[in-house]
Amino acid sequence: MKLLFNKSSLLQGVNIVLKAVPSRTTMPILECILIDATTHEIKFTTNDMELGIETKVKGEIIEKGKIAIDAKMFSDIVRKLPDNEVMIETDSNFNAIITCEKSKFNIASKSGDDFSYLPYIEKEKYITISQFGLKEVIRQTIFSISDNESKKLMTGELFEVNNNILKVVSLDGHRISIRKVEIEGNDNSIKVVVPGKTLIEISKILSSEVEDKVNIFFTNNHILFEFDNTIVVSRLIEGEYFKIDQMISSDYETKVVINKKEFLNCIDRATLLVREGDKKPIIINITDGSVELKVTSPLGSMNEEIDITKEGKDILIGFNPKFLMDALRVIDDEEINIYLVNSKAPCFIRDNEEKYIYLILPVNFSQA
Amino acid sequence: MKLLFNKSSLLQGVNIVLKAVPSRTTMPILECILIDATTHEIKFTTNDMELGIETKVKGEIIEKGKIAIDAKMFSDIVRKLPDNEVMIETDSNFNAIITCEKSKFNIASKSGDDFSYLPYIEKEKYITISQFGLKEVIRQTIFSISDNESKKLMTGELFEVNNNILKVVSLDGHRISIRKVEIEGNDNSIKVVVPGKTLIEISKILSSEVEDKVNIFFTNNHILFEFDNTIVVSRLIEGEYFKIDQMISSDYETKVVINKKEFLNCIDRATLLVREGDKKPIIINITDGSVELKVTSPLGSMNEEIDITKEGKDILIGFNPKFLMDALRVIDDEEINIYLVNSKAPCFIRDNEEKYIYLILPVNFSQA
Repeated sequence: MKLLFNKSSLLQGVNIVLKAVPSRTTMPILECILIDATTHEIKFTTNDMELGIETKVKGEIIEKGKIAIDAKMFSDIVRKLPDNEVMIETDSNFNAIITCEKSKFNIASKSGDDFSYLPYIEKEKYITISQFGLKEVIRQTIFSISDNESKKLMTGELFEVNNNILKVVSLDGHRISIRKVEIEGNDNSIKVVVPGKTLIEISKILSSEVEDKVNIFFTNNHILFEFDNTIVVSRLIEGEYFKIDQMISSDYETKVVINKKEFLNCIDRATLLVREGDKKPIIINITDGSVELKVTSPLGSMNEEIDITKEGKDILIGFNPKFLMDALRVIDDEEINIYLVNSKAPCFIRDNEEKYIYLILPVNFSQA
Repeated sequence: MKLLFNKSSLLQGVNIVLKAVPSRTTMPILECILIDATTHEIKFTTNDMELGIETKVKGEIIEKGKIAIDAKMFSDIVRKLPDNEVMIETDSNFNAIITCEKSKFNIASKSGDDFSYLPYIEKEKYITISQFGLKEVIRQTIFSISDNESKKLMTGELFEVNNNILKVVSLDGHRISIRKVEIEGNDNSIKVVVPGKTLIEISKILSSEVEDKVNIFFTNNHILFEFDNTIVVSRLIEGEYFKIDQMISSDYETKVVINKKEFLNCIDRATLLVREGDKKPIIINITDGSVELKVTSPLGSMNEEIDITKEGKDILIGFNPKFLMDALRVIDDEEINIYLVNSKAPCFIRDNEEKYIYLILPVNFSQA
């Protein structure tokens, strides 16, 4: 094999596929990038058996062939090479010789034949969405997945498609995040659970442009994202997702309209007095025209009032401040609506069109 | 006590004095900032008994007084307050009440009387230098101090003043860094050893402007830096510094002129093949017109050539790559001169005017 690249295209390709290289594995071949130039294109592939990425890299094929080269070492070398043409050659002992200007590396590598290719995916059911839109919807929900591997379904996100709407849901037992986003003309009905890790990694390689599109294909066991010169394939999480419609109610006793930034900054200040691991809730006292936040700890005390518009009953309720802040940080609206029932029932933060719903369970507190 | 501040002046003052708050101490009072408004000025002071900082903060004194308030908590609160006026009051139980807009904190604090003031420094011997100049000279030498507390003198830097020149020296047993910088008209002769920690912290609060000056005062046991509204006082390290003049020689057998950036980048690439903790030297082969770098490791091999101008003998020599890179990174010249004697003797990187001298000991290597 003998290939000629421009350093910047090479680095871009390496950075994309690096996202599916496992940090620890018992199978050394998975730590490699497969460079495949057996046809008329150059493809880089990585595969951790859950998640796989393949991207086409611009370059000249002087001699066809393939090789599996250690991903970490290869990316470190490419990053530090001068900005110039890079030649990658192999010899019969699976050594990769990387040459750029007067610099020459010789790296022991592996046969490309030992590499597991990505699974074949039937391209039938699919949706199209902007890369920016997908990136946003992931950012706005990913914080409420669980990292507890024994509750596998909670480590993923529900992707549900109906009537040209993609609904994305995550929950961890204390809160639920729901976002709805319009997709392009399509009458497929889809309901799958996508691993959180897949979504986190794909977020990092999606562009932030509304004009750039991504096609998402669905089979029973896999999801495939296709965009630019790249495809990302992931297994799905098996099982029936939680029946969230039963947990969402539109009844309320109290409705609060509050400035989002003021509320967020106030909670942020209040948590200064709560030492990490302390698990002290912040107590919110909602009365006509104002919300009062109060924290008392061995370090001192803090209280602050915020002007609000209120409908319905007064209420005193406690929350884990982190859960409130996580939701508030990903809402772009200046003013938000909070709906409450009583101090034991979940609160809902949602807009009028229900493009987003954030449900947060309250925390018991001793009223001192 | 009752004081009124603008949030930004308050935050600036806090950030300056925070640099002398010890991260761990058995004396809780040292974790505090002393706010002293007993006169017509507001002064913030911190003191870890080695290093002390005092800065004047702009604000209105409504009622005189003083208080010692936990530095970490206070700085966190100030940082997160709205950008507006901040009121700090104390009550008779040493509580500090911090109010900003509708936000109110009450923090248990300590009597200002328990705080150790900075030592009194006789302002006789001094030099004046630009803040930028001092910052630069620290950055260009601080990497070769030792962190071994049992070799106390090596943990500091020599500050030697003669004939309007400040010479700064650091060494760690493997290398020596020397920088000379002109100071303003002065015929004092000074020779002291300043703790490295003091220099690192003061670097963080000096401005990067050539026009801003700093006065440095010297006594037998202390050094005092005076700039803007701030003074920094530090103990000196006692003892006689190493006789470096005996270690510096201007004899050489080989002189190399090389492009600094090319050399640095090449060493950086070569070290990719050396795993951390491996302590493998890089071998440099200097011949007419070129330097060749070569690394062979279980991971693979690398070699690269750089064009040079050479005078004198060919030489094959090994170095710890980190030591070479540390020195090269802080030299601004495009082309540098390296002087060598043989593979067992130190190399010198120095400019013609000897504004800088970096001495680096070579490493033994087995010639395979």
